[in-house]
Amino acid sequence: MSKEEKLDKIRHSLSHIMAMAVLKKFPDAKLGIGPTIDNGFYYDFLLPEKLSDTDLPKIQKEMKKMIAQNIEFKKSISSKEDAIKKVGKQNFKVELIQDLPEGEEISFYESNDFSDLCAGPHIESSKEIKPDTFRLTHVAGAYWRGDEKNPMLTRIYGVAFETKKELENYLEMVEEAKKRDHRKLGKELDLFTFSEVVGAGLPLWTPKGTVIKEELQKYIEEICRKYGFQKVMTPHLAKIELFEKSGHAKKFADELFHVTSSKNHNFVLKPVQCPHQTQIYASRPRSYRDLPIRYMESEKQYRAEKSGEVGGLNRVYAITIEDGHSFCTVEQVKDEIRGMVNIIEQFYNTLGLWENHWVSLSLRDYDHPEKYIGDAKDWDKCEQILDDVAKEMKLDAQRNEGEAALYGPKLDFMFKDVLGNDIQIPTVQIDFATPKRFDLYYINENSEKVSPVMVHRAVLGSYERIVALLIEHFAGAFPLWLSPVQIKIITVGEGHIEHAKKLAEEFKANGIRVEVDDFSETVGNKIRKATQEKIPYTLVIGDKEMDSDKLAVRVRGQENLLNIDKRKFIEQTKTNIQNRSLEL
Amino acid sequence: MSKEEKLDKIRHSLSHIMAMAVLKKFPDAKLGIGPTIDNGFYYDFLLPEKLSDTDLPKIQKEMKKMIAQNIEFKKSISSKEDAIKKVGKQNFKVELIQDLPEGEEISFYESNDFSDLCAGPHIESSKEIKPDTFRLTHVAGAYWRGDEKNPMLTRIYGVAFETKKELENYLEMVEEAKKRDHRKLGKELDLFTFSEVVGAGLPLWTPKGTVIKEELQKYIEEICRKYGFQKVMTPHLAKIELFEKSGHAKKFADELFHVTSSKNHNFVLKPVQCPHQTQIYASRPRSYRDLPIRYMESEKQYRAEKSGEVGGLNRVYAITIEDGHSFCTVEQVKDEIRGMVNIIEQFYNTLGLWENHWVSLSLRDYDHPEKYIGDAKDWDKCEQILDDVAKEMKLDAQRNEGEAALYGPKLDFMFKDVLGNDIQIPTVQIDFATPKRFDLYYINENSEKVSPVMVHRAVLGSYERIVALLIEHFAGAFPLWLSPVQIKIITVGEGHIEHAKKLAEEFKANGIRVEVDDFSETVGNKIRKATQEKIPYTLVIGDKEMDSDKLAVRVRGQENLLNIDKRKFIEQTKTNIQNRSLEL
Repeated sequence: MSKEEKLDKIRHSLSHIMAMAVLKKFPDAKLGIGPTIDNGFYYDFLLPEKLSDTDLPKIQKEMKKMIAQNIEFKKSISSKEDAIKKVGKQNFKVELIQDLPEGEEISFYESNDFSDLCAGPHIESSKEIKPDTFRLTHVAGAYWRGDEKNPMLTRIYGVAFETKKELENYLEMVEEAKKRDHRKLGKELDLFTFSEVVGAGLPLWTPKGTVIKEELQKYIEEICRKYGFQKVMTPHLAKIELFEKSGHAKKFADELFHVTSSKNHNFVLKPVQCPHQTQIYASRPRSYRDLPIRYMESEKQYRAEKSGEVGGLNRVYAITIEDGHSFCTVEQVKDEIRGMVNIIEQFYNTLGLWENHWVSLSLRDYDHPEKYIGDAKDWDKCEQILDDVAKEMKLDAQRNEGEAALYGPKLDFMFKDVLGNDIQIPTVQIDFATPKRFDLYYINENSEKVSPVMVHRAVLGSYERIVALLIEHFAGAFPLWLSPVQIKIITVGEGHIEHAKKLAEEFKANGIRVEVDDFSETVGNKIRKATQEKIPYTLVIGDKEMDSDKLAVRVRGQENLLNIDKRKFIEQTKTNIQNRSLEL
Repeated sequence: MSKEEKLDKIRHSLSHIMAMAVLKKFPDAKLGIGPTIDNGFYYDFLLPEKLSDTDLPKIQKEMKKMIAQNIEFKKSISSKEDAIKKVGKQNFKVELIQDLPEGEEISFYESNDFSDLCAGPHIESSKEIKPDTFRLTHVAGAYWRGDEKNPMLTRIYGVAFETKKELENYLEMVEEAKKRDHRKLGKELDLFTFSEVVGAGLPLWTPKGTVIKEELQKYIEEICRKYGFQKVMTPHLAKIELFEKSGHAKKFADELFHVTSSKNHNFVLKPVQCPHQTQIYASRPRSYRDLPIRYMESEKQYRAEKSGEVGGLNRVYAITIEDGHSFCTVEQVKDEIRGMVNIIEQFYNTLGLWENHWVSLSLRDYDHPEKYIGDAKDWDKCEQILDDVAKEMKLDAQRNEGEAALYGPKLDFMFKDVLGNDIQIPTVQIDFATPKRFDLYYINENSEKVSPVMVHRAVLGSYERIVALLIEHFAGAFPLWLSPVQIKIITVGEGHIEHAKKLAEEFKANGIRVEVDDFSETVGNKIRKATQEKIPYTLVIGDKEMDSDKLAVRVRGQENLLNIDKRKFIEQTKTNIQNRSLEL
């Protein structure tokens, strides 16, 4: 039995023990289901009173008592009829049993006087559980069977690990993640906001958040321009025909926003950018000499998410995508892929995320060729190209069969978020289908019409998601180039304000983002505020500083003051910004 | 009688004479209406056959013959009953007469055997018309009474002036305007495109057009940042409540796009930017020390124009607006206005449009205070501020009573388009109402909640309209900084390509946009192409140029080649771009 399997049994058994503890407190509680999940377990209950997180320690204490009693888990088998009798007044369980196929064996697990409808498996005895390796974490509401027409149950979540150390590490990581939560930091650092009268799922970017978005955009466009990408702009609206032709109308049928007016207009908001870009390619005759043609744009695409599921920057209705496509000949595909991988590496290297990445070579499912479009020979060729480039560039790509896109294989780049979860953002995909669907062509050396290949690439993905990721990754302490305010100048008294403002102008003239805090609080308060705002450099201007060409610079995260010549500090700051350094 | 009144009589009489000429050719023609318009006149006919522009010279010849006969125009009065008898089979005229109020005198003008229902006035005799002062210009279709359920009539347009010279000038200007038409040049210069499958009214910006838009955006944001504007980004969607609160839902009821999904979402696409920006202001508590707070953004707003009326960049569904607002105290309004006027002056000065502008001080209609919202005392104050600033800045503003916005007075800046028509783009408006509607406030020195004033400003207006205006203004020959391709390098033979590409890389490294034309055509063809593309500088690279540090530069619009040291040329070009010069 693997370590994971054993842990899963423990987690599952803990959910039963939790149910026993809850039943002890509320003998009339009705039980829903109690499965294991990532890192832990939960159980749903219909309770006679409302529970909150503060009630959990008591239940947890009760559980520990029970565990100490070495409770055994024993499996028994019932017929459907007996099973229904057995669960008695537990009406949710009755419902579950009634839904089971006729004639199937129905298993229960008994532990002391508690008996639960359950497929198992479980541990043999609670003595297998070390009492310090689990924790009940929080309470949430959940509709029975996820249907809002059903009653709302109380769901209690718990986590469990093999060792106490592992549990502590996990709880620490969660604490840290809470502190870094982009929704919390986004509000504290004034990066974005939501308005009830505008609507949920529709973030408004404040001046500071906009700076971060714009710096990211400037950088990605700067890199992509070097690789021959030209910026274009396409509308957010289109006739639905555009997406019927591309296949996206069907794929995103439930996520489409429809746009109408009293004048009988009938549009949709685009769910993806690609089809619009094909129309710029199609606007003129193209020769083989024109290829590759590479377009990029940063525009919004729209998905009608369930209104209950939008939140923060990760789940929004309008996703600002930095999207790009290369239209090229088959012979050029390899070079295009290579360029795109270089772009991805440079971008994530600068952000300090590259070291922790892995690459998936996402191939087709060879047993089910019918799931894909395009010629098998073309597929072979494209998979070979991706494999070649991945090897040649030492990407150490893991082959994942069945992970290809509908129209071709791809390279997916995975990073870790604060909780250690895989996050996939960049991707490079080869597409033979879309150009054919839109009758795109170029004239080759022999004056024949030939379909170009379309290579899709996403680098930063959506600005919303990358900014959320970066806020959490940097815990709001952005590298200098991304910091909305790079220098804060603090004045000691009224007499220092003019000098501070002059200094600020000098920084501004050097392209540095600066703010003067001359509000009439104490210097201590001003410094505290600058620290909360995670400002990279803080300068205090008093009498001494007015008479000197030296600056006393408080560097974020460092105890000591940096005493430095003004000219030198400006030059160093400019260089740091220009190099997009990770360190101050 | 003024010159204009006399010209109007002549134009009106020409429309009658045109009707006579058409009736001579088509005795069964049914007549619609024949009014004067700017620069000329038209008449609508239901004809037994289709007319085209090539038929007009014949009709014009016939008109000249008639004019030479000194036709007299005589007024007569009829009763309604007689009038209907008089027009006989002219059923459109019957309809017009039936719609006239009962008992009103009905006047006809008779000229020879032609009699037309007409209020006049007319000239006394056709000898007042100099035959070389008018021209029939074109034929168009027009529904009877503008209603598409009615029959489509043939409308013949003519222009007429006092002198032959004036007519010639006008026709030349129209010819020039046709050549400069942004729809024509936009296609020829590959700046933007439309796609049937995306839909009319939804321009797609190609790489070259995007360069122009981005350069304008970079410049306006650069100026505005100096004046304290901070960029924000707001969503294109909102709940309709946002615009009900602002009053725009009512104002733009017919122009609103409604956004729905299969998941019961219900949004609108924003018809204006202002309400969204109030929500960023409202996202935190504000102190008097924080003011003024100035936001700017370049996002799209949407208007459901009639589908038959969209076209080119001037009439689109999604308008990319560079919009800005200052939230300030009443005491700060004057400084804010001053800053905004400075921004407008700098921007239009750079574009060479400032010299030809005039300013309207758009005030309220004093006889109808009920048309406006807000306090009369506030209005007086604001109008005084605008008047003071206008005088102080020597704007020579013309007072236009009744031209104010709903919520306050404004300064409107007017420019001339290629046809000499006034075009209003920039505007500065004072608004007391919106902040109150959204409960915006700041805490003043006495810890009281006070409504800020909202000063609206538009500088370049919409990118679509300004690009259309600039294409026509410059006839596609943009100043260097706006040119999508600034330098074209032309190779003489295969042996020169490498050198040309190296040179191009050097220009690129200096921030200059460059293209190499190494296609295997003749040098003459390459030069012709660069000329058609209105490239500012064209360089030919042959054997001689490869051995020298000098460049032979063909400057757009100049005959002679400029012989110049490479380093010096690069420096000059960089300076020209940086200064955003109008001249090469």
